[in-house]
This record gives sequence, C-alpha cells and structure tokens, in this order.
Amino acid sequence: MAHIDLGVDEAAFPGITGPMRFRPETAKPLNELAEVLLRGPHSLTPGERELIAAHVSGLNECEFCCASHSAFAAAQLDGGMNVVDQVRSDLDTAPVSAKLRALLRIASAVRDDGRKVTTELVEAARAQGATDVEIHDTVLIAAAFCMYNRYVDGLGTLPPRDPARYADSARMIVEFGYTAAIPT
Amino acid sequence: MAHIDLGVDEAAFPGITGPMRFRPETAKPLNELAEVLLRGPHSLTPGERELIAAHVSGLNECEFCCASHSAFAAAQLDGGMNVVDQVRSDLDTAPVSAKLRALLRIASAVRDDGRKVTTELVEAARAQGATDVEIHDTVLIAAAFCMYNRYVDGLGTLPPRDPARYADSARMIVEFGYTAAIPT
Repeated sequence: MAHIDLGVDEAAFPGITGPMRFRPETAKPLNELAEVLLRGPHSLTPGERELIAAHVSGLNECEFCCASHSAFAAAQLDGGMNVVDQVRSDLDTAPVSAKLRALLRIASAVRDDGRKVTTELVEAARAQGATDVEIHDTVLIAAAFCMYNRYVDGLGTLPPRDPARYADSARMIVEFGYTAAIPT
Repeated sequence: MAHIDLGVDEAAFPGITGPMRFRPETAKPLNELAEVLLRGPHSLTPGERELIAAHVSGLNECEFCCASHSAFAAAQLDGGMNVVDQVRSDLDTAPVSAKLRALLRIASAVRDDGRKVTTELVEAARAQGATDVEIHDTVLIAAAFCMYNRYVDGLGTLPPRDPARYADSARMIVEFGYTAAIPT
C-alpha cells in the first residue's frame, strides 16, 4: 500500500503510474520532461539516454524505475539487457562507447551530489567527443531520476507483481512515448 | 565558469537561468513543474511550499536554489526571512504550524532517500491535518528540488555576485510566476 490513497487499484497502476493518475497536474510536466530528455531529437540515441536513467535509478536502488528504464533501454539498444546488466554491474568494463562511459560517470557523480561533477569528469567526456548538449542532458537526466526515484519511493508505491509488465511498458513507451501516458 | 558553454553572459544569467536559456526545450517542463508545485491552486500557501523548497535546497547545500527559494518564501510568508532562517537552523523549534513542521520532516526524509519516508512520518503529518494532496506534493516538491539542486550544481553554474538579485527575482516570481521565466 502506498502512503496515501491514490484512488486507483494499485495492482493495476504500479510505481509512478498511481501518483500520476492521482495528480494529473504534476504528471503533465513530469511526462513532458521525460519525453524531451529521453526521446526528443538528440545525438544520443533513446537507448543510450534510457541507459543513463536506468544506471542512476539502480544507484538509487529504486526498484520500479530501475526495472522500467532497464527494460526501456534494453528494448532500444543493440545488445539489449546484456549491455544494461553489464553497465549496472561494472561500468569500467561494460561494452559501451568511451563517450557513453564518460557520460555515465558524470551521471554517477550527479546522483551522489551535483558538486561531485568535476572539471576532470567533464573534460574526459569532451575528450571522447561529448558535446555541450550531451553533457547538459546527461546532468539533467541524472538529476531528474534523483527526482523520479524519490517520488516513487517517497510515496511508498509498489512495483508490479508480474515482471512481464516492464516489457509491456517498454513496448508502449517505444511506440507512443511518455506524453501519451499522461492520465486523462 | 560553468562546465559547458551556456552561450550567455553568466553574470547576467546566474544559477539555473543560464541552463534554461541554453536548453529551452527542457526549461519549459521544468518551469511548468515549479509553477504547479509552488504556485498552483493549493491548500498550502505559496510561502509554505517555497519554504519546503528552501529547506530541501539548504539540506542539499545548493547555494543558488537555497538563497532563491528562501527569498521567494520570505516574500510570501508572515514572519519573512526570520521564519525561513529558523526552519533552516532548527526545524523542531521554528515558528511554523505543527502540520507544516510534520511536512518539512517528510521533505527531509525524501531528500535523504525516498525510502526514508516512514508510515510514522506520514501518520504524524496526517494527525496534524495534512491531506493526501499535501503529503503527495510535499514528497514531489522535495524530490523535485533534489533534481533542481543537482542540475544547478552539476553544471557548475555560478550564483549571482550581488545578493540583491534574489530579492529582485522574488518580486518577479511573486508577480509573474515561473512559466513567465521560460526563455523565448
């Protein structure tokens, strides 16, 4: 049971989906932010950006967000869940580009504390070809998932009982995006 | 100097305002979220909600956000900056309502980790009359400032050189709101 009465069947609306039904006024900008950051036009692929989201959610130990965005990343990355698992278990050896590895290190720092992002971390990403927009969006994706993770866990929402739900959600997100998920 | 070239005079666009000019696509939902959470129709006053934002930003030691939202809270609270300072120095004895004190304790827990929000903290707020929407929005305001704080500090933005800028910003926010601040 969540900490508040979300007014929905929590089994049908697990994780963030219950609070989004409860408060559509805040769901709207929350979904629009996810859409721009994770699926808008970009030099990083949606799979790469979902991987940053999954990585941060894993560090924050947010079960719902980590499993969701791992599934969304796996559905859109060459290498699928194998790559996601390797990034989450050992970033240093995971089979991702040097640029993405450097961006994931920036994301790790942001997750800890924004002030942990050093000139060295930024220069390392730039040396691998990262652009200012890529660095900006990496910082904001990591920061945003420090919000989404706390929102989901701070309200005591439940993850889905059936893990197959994450793959179902991945199909919906890949096809229709986050703003289509706004409750009406 | 920020970690990336924000394309603006950083002295003229301190803190979050530089990144918002740099990336208006993300500024839009970020400002809309702040507007709904801090200024939308609500049973908590804008001053009370800004106090939650200032409290979390203080715990995260984000100089720009803490000084900004302290000024925005002070401009809209009876007792002004004196109340803000007392909340930030000792929440237990600060001159706020028992309900707001209980909500600020929930915000402190969210800031640390969403999973730190206990049934006891939520019941204590409810015992002081807090509604489900007030508890929901307290959790989301606290979570959102864990994002804004990391965004501002993760990009290495600078606070304004002149502290009078915070009071100027407070006048603008109180009169025109956050969405009017979206760069065009």
